[in-house]
Amino acid sequence: MQITVLAGGVGGARFVRGLLSHLRTRDDAEQTSVTVVGNTGDDITLVGLRVCPDLDTLLYTLGDGVDEGQGWGRAQESTRVAGELATLGVGPDWFTLGDLDLATHLARSRWLAQGLTLSEVTARLAQRWGLPDRGVRLLPATDTPIETHVVVDDGEGGERAIHFQEWWVRHGASLPARRFTVAGLGEAKAAPHVLDALRTADVVLFPPSNPVVSIGIILGVPGVREALRGTRAPVVGVSPLLGGRPVRGHADACLAPLGVEVSAAGVAGLYADFLDGWLVDDADAGLRYPAGAQVRSMDLLMRDTEGAARLAGAALDLGRELSPVGAGTRGPR
Amino acid sequence: MQITVLAGGVGGARFVRGLLSHLRTRDDAEQTSVTVVGNTGDDITLVGLRVCPDLDTLLYTLGDGVDEGQGWGRAQESTRVAGELATLGVGPDWFTLGDLDLATHLARSRWLAQGLTLSEVTARLAQRWGLPDRGVRLLPATDTPIETHVVVDDGEGGERAIHFQEWWVRHGASLPARRFTVAGLGEAKAAPHVLDALRTADVVLFPPSNPVVSIGIILGVPGVREALRGTRAPVVGVSPLLGGRPVRGHADACLAPLGVEVSAAGVAGLYADFLDGWLVDDADAGLRYPAGAQVRSMDLLMRDTEGAARLAGAALDLGRELSPVGAGTRGPR
Repeated sequence: MQITVLAGGVGGARFVRGLLSHLRTRDDAEQTSVTVVGNTGDDITLVGLRVCPDLDTLLYTLGDGVDEGQGWGRAQESTRVAGELATLGVGPDWFTLGDLDLATHLARSRWLAQGLTLSEVTARLAQRWGLPDRGVRLLPATDTPIETHVVVDDGEGGERAIHFQEWWVRHGASLPARRFTVAGLGEAKAAPHVLDALRTADVVLFPPSNPVVSIGIILGVPGVREALRGTRAPVVGVSPLLGGRPVRGHADACLAPLGVEVSAAGVAGLYADFLDGWLVDDADAGLRYPAGAQVRSMDLLMRDTEGAARLAGAALDLGRELSPVGAGTRGPR
Repeated sequence: MQITVLAGGVGGARFVRGLLSHLRTRDDAEQTSVTVVGNTGDDITLVGLRVCPDLDTLLYTLGDGVDEGQGWGRAQESTRVAGELATLGVGPDWFTLGDLDLATHLARSRWLAQGLTLSEVTARLAQRWGLPDRGVRLLPATDTPIETHVVVDDGEGGERAIHFQEWWVRHGASLPARRFTVAGLGEAKAAPHVLDALRTADVVLFPPSNPVVSIGIILGVPGVREALRGTRAPVVGVSPLLGGRPVRGHADACLAPLGVEVSAAGVAGLYADFLDGWLVDDADAGLRYPAGAQVRSMDLLMRDTEGAARLAGAALDLGRELSPVGAGTRGPR
């Protein structure tokens, strides 16, 4: 079975880890492979180094190297370099690069400077974290450098654009966003294998990732949305909103500027043109959802890897139901 | 009094620290300033970062941040980033960048990328280490990137060039050097203030730095040798060889390929066209020295900062003797 997952950062990574945990309990574990398409819209260049927060969170989480407490960054991390950089007045004071994490960025920047694509760089990092051995292929959505910017009030009646990370990390998404723009997205090219992974999948899963600044960015890469509309695989998503609120992150602050209802139904509407199945929390069972997607409700909270595995299993089950000829076999819908 | 010092790495840095210690005991400490011209020939780009080993050793030593045991690098250093880089297979395995040290290279690389000259970068780093407050101005010999290469046997009857650091650090200078070449040196331009610091000094001091790959590189920067020949200041050097052997480093392995006698006299010969005073070890008092320089012997070993201060004081005293109108006043020679 080929499973393709579109993922953002922490929520996406934990969902995929749950998915892998779930798959290990299945008879067809050996025949199952997982392709994860990661968001690159929140990538940023800091102190001259290219940082890919979502890809790194996926690498560290799936490679058992993540800081479990915060959900991102390396376990047993230290900040000696960052401390000295602060003394030197280099780099923004609202983004601390851990020492071990910094090595990832140094390696990535070095390899990019040597001419490797982000896909190739990501494959090397995935190797270091043992992802291939776990049956996981991690792809950036695009090798084209893109950057999400947030347009906010400038306090003088006008507006200004700041980098997504500045809005998210420095301001905690508390500055009202007027809109999001993604530099480079219109001309971006889907990374190798991304469109194929969507077209040839047996099931496509959307974790409870941010629908605007994570999944939304991947969907904005030319060809991705069309591949999802055209794939024969059922597309099953998990709502990132429970009772109208995100479990973590700031999906609410991202949906509002789009004029989209901050609810599991509002998010489903963003995916309406390709969504086949939609898992929502029991609290949201009574909402009015767009036609076309099979909605199922359950306890959606991922308290731990076991909870994430339960969620991933339910999403796969729903996908199997929606697949006309059963899981593991592709056929016309 | 204006003192200008040409310095390499550890030996040069310790000598200058001794000089500062000595100056603090003098009445004219307030009126004395020290300009240190540092060697940049052993600079290297590692993992995309510009590393200036000699300048950093000067910064850390004069700023009380050096690892006293090894004489270079930061005190209380750690190597977390380097460990992860090794896991990723990035960077040479014979050069370990410490975490705190790495921050220096990150900052330098960032500032260089922003268009600052190495002089400007070095001034910022000197500020962080409090050098201006100690009356020290640190200048790179040149802002032009230069790199010393060592031509060695290729084992097949031919020759190959390796970076100086590879020869020095990886091979411990044990590969016989055929010759040294310095990429970029012929077209290099002396950094701002370097030639003036030589021309207008009251005394110019040569610490016991490597005469070939440290001092020799600085002397190779166009204009430097001419400025030394033309300066009205007495030029006083300290032999890096005691009884024909370097106290540390590999000056012997550097002199041999030049066909220069491995002795305090051989080194003096390299400086013969401008040298006014030459401090040698008591063990070398009986050697035959080139004419033109006043030779004085003493116990030359810098066992600690006090020993370095004693040495620097002796060099200053010799300079004062050789200055026709006394220290602190410049006049025709």
